[in-house]
Amino acid sequence: MEHKEYLVTGEEQKGFHNHVDYCIGTGRMGLALQKEYMEQLALVQKEIGFSHIRGHGLFSDDMGIYREYTDENGTVHAEYCFTYLDLVMDSYRSVGLKPFLELGFMPEKLASGDQTVFYWKGHVTPPKSYDGWYDMVQATLRHLMERYGADEVVTWPLEVWNEPNLPGFWKDADMEEYFVLFERTLKAVKEVDIRFRVGGPAICGVEDEKWIRCFLEFCREKQLPLDFVTRHHYTTEVPQTEGHYGYTILRDPETGFENLQTTRDIVDSFEEYRGMEIHITEFNTSYVPNCPLHDTNQNAAYIAQQLSRLGDVNESYSYWTFGDIFEEFGVPFAPFHGGFGLVANGCIPKPTFWTFRFFKQLTGTCVHRSEDAVITRQEDGSFRGVVWNSSCRRTGRKLELSFQISCGNAEDRPYFLLTETVDENTCNPLKLWHDMGETTHLMQEQKSLLQEAAKPAIASRRVDVAQVEGKGVLKFLLPVEEYGVIYFELKPICEGGDRGYDYDRVLG
Amino acid sequence: MEHKEYLVTGEEQKGFHNHVDYCIGTGRMGLALQKEYMEQLALVQKEIGFSHIRGHGLFSDDMGIYREYTDENGTVHAEYCFTYLDLVMDSYRSVGLKPFLELGFMPEKLASGDQTVFYWKGHVTPPKSYDGWYDMVQATLRHLMERYGADEVVTWPLEVWNEPNLPGFWKDADMEEYFVLFERTLKAVKEVDIRFRVGGPAICGVEDEKWIRCFLEFCREKQLPLDFVTRHHYTTEVPQTEGHYGYTILRDPETGFENLQTTRDIVDSFEEYRGMEIHITEFNTSYVPNCPLHDTNQNAAYIAQQLSRLGDVNESYSYWTFGDIFEEFGVPFAPFHGGFGLVANGCIPKPTFWTFRFFKQLTGTCVHRSEDAVITRQEDGSFRGVVWNSSCRRTGRKLELSFQISCGNAEDRPYFLLTETVDENTCNPLKLWHDMGETTHLMQEQKSLLQEAAKPAIASRRVDVAQVEGKGVLKFLLPVEEYGVIYFELKPICEGGDRGYDYDRVLG
Amino acid sequence: MEHKEYLVTGEEQKGFHNHVDYCIGTGRMGLALQKEYMEQLALVQKEIGFSHIRGHGLFSDDMGIYREYTDENGTVHAEYCFTYLDLVMDSYRSVGLKPFLELGFMPEKLASGDQTVFYWKGHVTPPKSYDGWYDMVQATLRHLMERYGADEVVTWPLEVWNEPNLPGFWKDADMEEYFVLFERTLKAVKEVDIRFRVGGPAICGVEDEKWIRCFLEFCREKQLPLDFVTRHHYTTEVPQTEGHYGYTILRDPETGFENLQTTRDIVDSFEEYRGMEIHITEFNTSYVPNCPLHDTNQNAAYIAQQLSRLGDVNESYSYWTFGDIFEEFGVPFAPFHGGFGLVANGCIPKPTFWTFRFFKQLTGTCVHRSEDAVITRQEDGSFRGVVWNSSCRRTGRKLELSFQISCGNAEDRPYFLLTETVDENTCNPLKLWHDMGETTHLMQEQKSLLQEAAKPAIASRRVDVAQVEGKGVLKFLLPVEEYGVIYFELKPICEGGDRGYDYDRVLG
Amino acid sequence: MEHKEYLVTGEEQKGFHNHVDYCIGTGRMGLALQKEYMEQLALVQKEIGFSHIRGHGLFSDDMGIYREYTDENGTVHAEYCFTYLDLVMDSYRSVGLKPFLELGFMPEKLASGDQTVFYWKGHVTPPKSYDGWYDMVQATLRHLMERYGADEVVTWPLEVWNEPNLPGFWKDADMEEYFVLFERTLKAVKEVDIRFRVGGPAICGVEDEKWIRCFLEFCREKQLPLDFVTRHHYTTEVPQTEGHYGYTILRDPETGFENLQTTRDIVDSFEEYRGMEIHITEFNTSYVPNCPLHDTNQNAAYIAQQLSRLGDVNESYSYWTFGDIFEEFGVPFAPFHGGFGLVANGCIPKPTFWTFRFFKQLTGTCVHRSEDAVITRQEDGSFRGVVWNSSCRRTGRKLELSFQISCGNAEDRPYFLLTETVDENTCNPLKLWHDMGETTHLMQEQKSLLQEAAKPAIASRRVDVAQVEGKGVLKFLLPVEEYGVIYFELKPICEGGDRGYDYDRVLG
Repeated sequence: MEHKEYLVTGEEQKGFHNHVDYCIGTGRMGLALQKEYMEQLALVQKEIGFSHIRGHGLFSDDMGIYREYTDENGTVHAEYCFTYLDLVMDSYRSVGLKPFLELGFMPEKLASGDQTVFYWKGHVTPPKSYDGWYDMVQATLRHLMERYGADEVVTWPLEVWNEPNLPGFWKDADMEEYFVLFERTLKAVKEVDIRFRVGGPAICGVEDEKWIRCFLEFCREKQLPLDFVTRHHYTTEVPQTEGHYGYTILRDPETGFENLQTTRDIVDSFEEYRGMEIHITEFNTSYVPNCPLHDTNQNAAYIAQQLSRLGDVNESYSYWTFGDIFEEFGVPFAPFHGGFGLVANGCIPKPTFWTFRFFKQLTGTCVHRSEDAVITRQEDGSFRGVVWNSSCRRTGRKLELSFQISCGNAEDRPYFLLTETVDENTCNPLKLWHDMGETTHLMQEQKSLLQEAAKPAIASRRVDVAQVEGKGVLKFLLPVEEYGVIYFELKPICEGGDRGYDYDRVLG
Repeated sequence: MEHKEYLVTGEEQKGFHNHVDYCIGTGRMGLALQKEYMEQLALVQKEIGFSHIRGHGLFSDDMGIYREYTDENGTVHAEYCFTYLDLVMDSYRSVGLKPFLELGFMPEKLASGDQTVFYWKGHVTPPKSYDGWYDMVQATLRHLMERYGADEVVTWPLEVWNEPNLPGFWKDADMEEYFVLFERTLKAVKEVDIRFRVGGPAICGVEDEKWIRCFLEFCREKQLPLDFVTRHHYTTEVPQTEGHYGYTILRDPETGFENLQTTRDIVDSFEEYRGMEIHITEFNTSYVPNCPLHDTNQNAAYIAQQLSRLGDVNESYSYWTFGDIFEEFGVPFAPFHGGFGLVANGCIPKPTFWTFRFFKQLTGTCVHRSEDAVITRQEDGSFRGVVWNSSCRRTGRKLELSFQISCGNAEDRPYFLLTETVDENTCNPLKLWHDMGETTHLMQEQKSLLQEAAKPAIASRRVDVAQVEGKGVLKFLLPVEEYGVIYFELKPICEGGDRGYDYDRVLG
Repeated sequence: MEHKEYLVTGEEQKGFHNHVDYCIGTGRMGLALQKEYMEQLALVQKEIGFSHIRGHGLFSDDMGIYREYTDENGTVHAEYCFTYLDLVMDSYRSVGLKPFLELGFMPEKLASGDQTVFYWKGHVTPPKSYDGWYDMVQATLRHLMERYGADEVVTWPLEVWNEPNLPGFWKDADMEEYFVLFERTLKAVKEVDIRFRVGGPAICGVEDEKWIRCFLEFCREKQLPLDFVTRHHYTTEVPQTEGHYGYTILRDPETGFENLQTTRDIVDSFEEYRGMEIHITEFNTSYVPNCPLHDTNQNAAYIAQQLSRLGDVNESYSYWTFGDIFEEFGVPFAPFHGGFGLVANGCIPKPTFWTFRFFKQLTGTCVHRSEDAVITRQEDGSFRGVVWNSSCRRTGRKLELSFQISCGNAEDRPYFLLTETVDENTCNPLKLWHDMGETTHLMQEQKSLLQEAAKPAIASRRVDVAQVEGKGVLKFLLPVEEYGVIYFELKPICEGGDRGYDYDRVLG
Repeated sequence: MEHKEYLVTGEEQKGFHNHVDYCIGTGRMGLALQKEYMEQLALVQKEIGFSHIRGHGLFSDDMGIYREYTDENGTVHAEYCFTYLDLVMDSYRSVGLKPFLELGFMPEKLASGDQTVFYWKGHVTPPKSYDGWYDMVQATLRHLMERYGADEVVTWPLEVWNEPNLPGFWKDADMEEYFVLFERTLKAVKEVDIRFRVGGPAICGVEDEKWIRCFLEFCREKQLPLDFVTRHHYTTEVPQTEGHYGYTILRDPETGFENLQTTRDIVDSFEEYRGMEIHITEFNTSYVPNCPLHDTNQNAAYIAQQLSRLGDVNESYSYWTFGDIFEEFGVPFAPFHGGFGLVANGCIPKPTFWTFRFFKQLTGTCVHRSEDAVITRQEDGSFRGVVWNSSCRRTGRKLELSFQISCGNAEDRPYFLLTETVDENTCNPLKLWHDMGETTHLMQEQKSLLQEAAKPAIASRRVDVAQVEGKGVLKFLLPVEEYGVIYFELKPICEGGDRGYDYDRVLG
């Protein structure tokens, strides 16, 4: 048991920027047509509530947007079908989401080559005709503006392509070609409406020096009205594959934070772009969708610390992904298969789901941030906090956190302390599924049981206000199991009570 | 910590008759028109699923059935309005319930006096005209048969009046007058359809010697085709009132079981009625709807033991009541007010709710019954059990139950042990509500929190099959907190698992 | 067939004030606890969408607010229970409604006598203690403010009592006593929060000269901060009763409009109150809840004309009532029983329901109002209209309305004309129910059939823009059956169409 | 106006076999994952209620079933993923459907060539390894039996491939190769469970002589335990293409019926197969999914006649398809695009939807079948009928049908005649959509309007029982517009009525 004491004075702690709910990731857009996908997303939105959603495949052929036909003279024309796009956007909006639109990949008929990525075969070669691309991008935006209103649609951020610095995602990882694509796309967009906000280069988070710097130099040279910079952020080593699964280990989080600082520094080194928004349009621990780590409490605790820090130099950070309807490595064989999702198939929240829900509650003024906790004070004088016990390797450490919070409460009435605990004992659907026998095909009653077991343990107590040097102080202990994440609320109690009711007498 | 060891051989244990889901109680029928009432009932039916429902007030004026008008000659006629009755019966059927129809109380215009009972003023005097009563009973049954089909409606048990041995419920507790009512009612019913099953005398469970014996003598003498006997069963002392609340203490359960045996013996002493069904048409701990005990874990554990025994000599036992929409002492002032219900207002399950849900799972063959537990074996070889730690006064006793169950499983594959725990730490909405400040008026988010906190803690482990003298034996410990109730399932595991998945490696 | 031609120039027609959705009536508040009540209300809100709801019985004992207890010294104290009030207000708010709070009737224990009104026995005598009344009113408002927020609750209009000019509703119709009640109530309210808006005298619409004038004189003399004046408005003769039903005939609507003008004139004759808001807090054709007229198409057409005129001198007009869960004359015996409601029991919209829905659509600028029609122009250049064929007695008149609307549309593209028709042939659930056999107890499939048949007939056509003197003109005919009400929309068509689609070719 | 008189004696008319609800068609199985697909299907099942569903693509790669991996020795193994299959089957079962499983098409990795069909690229070449196919079929069935129970799954009919007589669906339309496939598949299936029922050859309905005869000869020769024969049935000429659409004309229905008789005769000519079940596993008017005819009232009337006859020599007939989520020609550009579905995208029932619903009601004994009508008598003495006015080309014919039905009702009480009318005036969403402007992208309120307008017109009247030669006769006229379809019910009225209610007096 490791014991730590934290004194919380009540003064604002600068630095904690909570953008937890700005954006969430998703697999290819065509999956958004699916019923289970939407059920998982609806659960995420009900319990967490993100503002934006970003994924691949807007222009992939399963969305059916780009089409060609030949007229009587033999001339080939493009035409656009927005039937599925409307279904997807209607669905997103029905759960309160705006798209963070990634413009990619390439329709097969518009592709210059036949290289594809993933089981679902996203085309990743440059357009055979940049004019064709230009027209498609414009037609798509114009359609969206007609349907959802121009004033609304221009608030949807646009990102050009995905991870062009990887040859799997962009033929030969050809940087010069990407710059061509970026410039044409940005011009197409701004011509439709100058208010649109456009960013890139959406790189996988390595090679910053090369890609980010060159990208900004290119934009500066071309005087392109860039609106924001995007990159990704993963924090595990290269996985070892065994059967369908990839096993990996976590990296020291500080390495990643330094990496993000590097990007920030590069951007700020350009006078024109100093302070420009940087959006992490993907992050997670592992970058493979078959990594069992994603399903664990360890992941939840590690991500808690990430969420306490990622806002330091970034405007947003989009967890990749909300759910496990995802086909990059093919349709998964089992409900718990190490998918990226906050939710496992069968609509079962994973521990990390709750990390997001807990951070979502951290509104108000930050009064404490440490390596174990973040606490905020609300306008009504109550406090909310998240604490965690994270480490890259299992050590068996139990943590006991002792808080003393100055509440400035001259009165004597006690506080209501509510805790919601997610740890390997209380909220660990992966273990339950394992104990059941690791069935690959859940029956409905098994899904229901797992859903029920996947919820935080709720507990409460009353905390009296101690008077310390004339000021009210709330003292309490929070034990945190290894890989545990706990949310708490501390509220001054408005005593109700009814005539004749005596709780102590009830207890006997 | 008290440690007990139980050896379960796998042979059937006679005596345990599980009628837990036969019937549930409800306040006056008119309340069934309410939205919150139906929400509470729907929750009960979804999670537990009773077959019948019984309550008062079918003929009370808020149901609007009995009406009178005067024709042009000045003659007064009765007429019947079944608009609300249809709404109620439709609602009951929509959640899978048949009524156990209590024929009472008296419409004001048909009453011979003005004595009423309860805040809602149920009239409790005999009919001013037994012919009027006769016609009303018949008209009501005929209407129900027309609407729901004769074959269905004749399966609804009928009980004549409620607790006529108390002067508050039947003027002067006049036994002779009750016999008149019973005879006329039974004849009215059987004339409509001989298949109807009719019972009485629905007494509050005292004075058996007087009422039960006289009632049966009366029936025998009159050669009435009685179908079953009914009585009630409460197990607390007279409450002490303080403000809106009544505080009381539990009686030794054996006293109550003896009392029930007495009724059984009286019935069996009549040759004509030997072995006749006895239905406990009401039971609970306390008999007042403002007794905070009802909301506690202590109540849940006490009722667990009751449910393990009440089937010994009774055909059914109807917990009084399913929910807390109930007005006998007036509209309650607070969500937790000691109402009879399994569900508190705000749709919050009380601990006792889970006792019922747990016993509902006890299908199959009983292989163990003790003062702490009941275990049954299912056809598929799995086991289900309920254990509890009950006492009439708080003692601080923790119980540790050690089971050895012969599973006859020659194979070596382990079992999946699932536990669902309800105790003062894990599932105690009353405490949460108290810690919050005992607010009398819950906001929606408080209701949601209480609902969430009112669920059992789910845990699991694997139990290996030990080989003892060539037979498979499952050994495991179940610690039970004071007033705790635990449900468990033990199932042989069908190993799934996917290519490359290694749970131990996942844990690191 | 009577043919009329209307030329619509497109200029605004002053005088039409559309307050159709400001307020709707309801039976006693306790009924709002009912499930079917809320289903009917939800339907009304989904299809029409009122802002406020007003009914009787806030303080009647079925709401359980006022309670008394005696302390150990024998002193009697009042206490207040808001359990049901919260349920009702939560329900109202869940369907988007604010209450227009009528402060009445009297709790039995606070009543000075035992006179009651209606089957449900609302007490109508003055308080035995005005201090008790004062405290109850304040406690109720303070509770509501705590639960729903002060800023919200002060927007709920408050009306003192109901129809005190009728001895059935206020003992002896004692005007002086009412003034006492009004003054005390107003002071109680304003003391809680000066922002509350309070009105009266809520009279049944006769005796204006006496009651309205005296009331205003009283307020002026006492310098009471009156906020608005209220009265009721019914337009049929005294009904003839036969069995459960009251048959009546409609009065010439002009008589009623003149009556309303009289009230306006009286109010305006007071310098202090000139232009003060007048709210008609109840109106309908007949004032009895067993008048079959309410269920007819004739009622729908008559009310259409009312809705075109009632805003002339009144700030609002609240149709009495939204639904037929209503017990003033007892629980109704049949689904169609002449109840006040827009919706019959079984959730079946009556023809008048659609009159309200149609008028709700009449947003924008009025460009035509006549004895047969109202037409408004929307900001997008489209038109909406309601036409009707109303008369007090059946005459067999068919109406053919010919419209020429200047649309100022220089372009040539046609308009889309949509009509929704409610008349005795197309939307007449009463007839269907009669043809079925006037069953008093609808089975679910009969309800479904009636619901389906109770919808307007939808039709469409295209209307070409004729060029008349250089301006676009839309010419079209609308035939209206006797007692018919038709809603129409005229929208310029944005031609879609797809490559190769030819509708004429489809038709063959 | 053409007038026809029909005398209905009440005697059973042999020959009408109503299999309308046995099976319905669907696009590729992977589409069943979609939300809108399931919404359309849920609507179909709620209003019509089919028993089985059949479509293509069970083994296509979007279902993700067949997968391969290479072990450490370089050996390639097959493995199967049933994640999506479970989702689809769970969905089907949730709306009460069993699959009529078409075993096809080929997984890409198991295909011997690269020929594909449709926008969605179903592989149509024979397996590169019949052993691989064999194993996949068995693994799939075994998985389904484990999940849904063997006794249930063996009731699901199995059909081998689709339209192998067309080179687009089966490489080179190679009949011998199909027979190989059939034999191997049948053996694989029967080895899993002999109770499975298997059929073929699923041909597009031409070349019967060649395919059906040869297929049966092959089965006979090989002594294959064939369970049923399948074929398709379309009744239009080759379409002319214009843009995205195919225009065509209907064939005389008798041609089609003769064609079906031919198949029956061929089957019956084999002693071994005489009387064997023939299932039409696809039928519709046109066989292309871009034929606007499908959306019309003409289609509805034509299909009505088909439904009155298709049971003559076939055990079932599966309309192709239930909905318009369908991608064979790519994602459709507009909601009304001539898709096969009973429901247009946006959940809008087409006229033909109602033809199916109406025929679904035709339970009981057939007492009349003519070229215009089918009438059945129910056990309770009521009648149900469907009448239609169908022709292959628009002629303007209005039909007036006069029925005299012997009802054998000695009593005098009238009948309730209910009609539900679908014709170009009353239920024609295509016209409404055209009048709106043929928008390709419906907003929600447009969808709602179209849904509302896409319902039959309901009307009612009372029909008196005339006494003809001592027997009760019901006489009534039904006018039927061109392309109209009307459903009617005639029920003896159980007069309800309430004290004092007088409908004539209500009407005034």
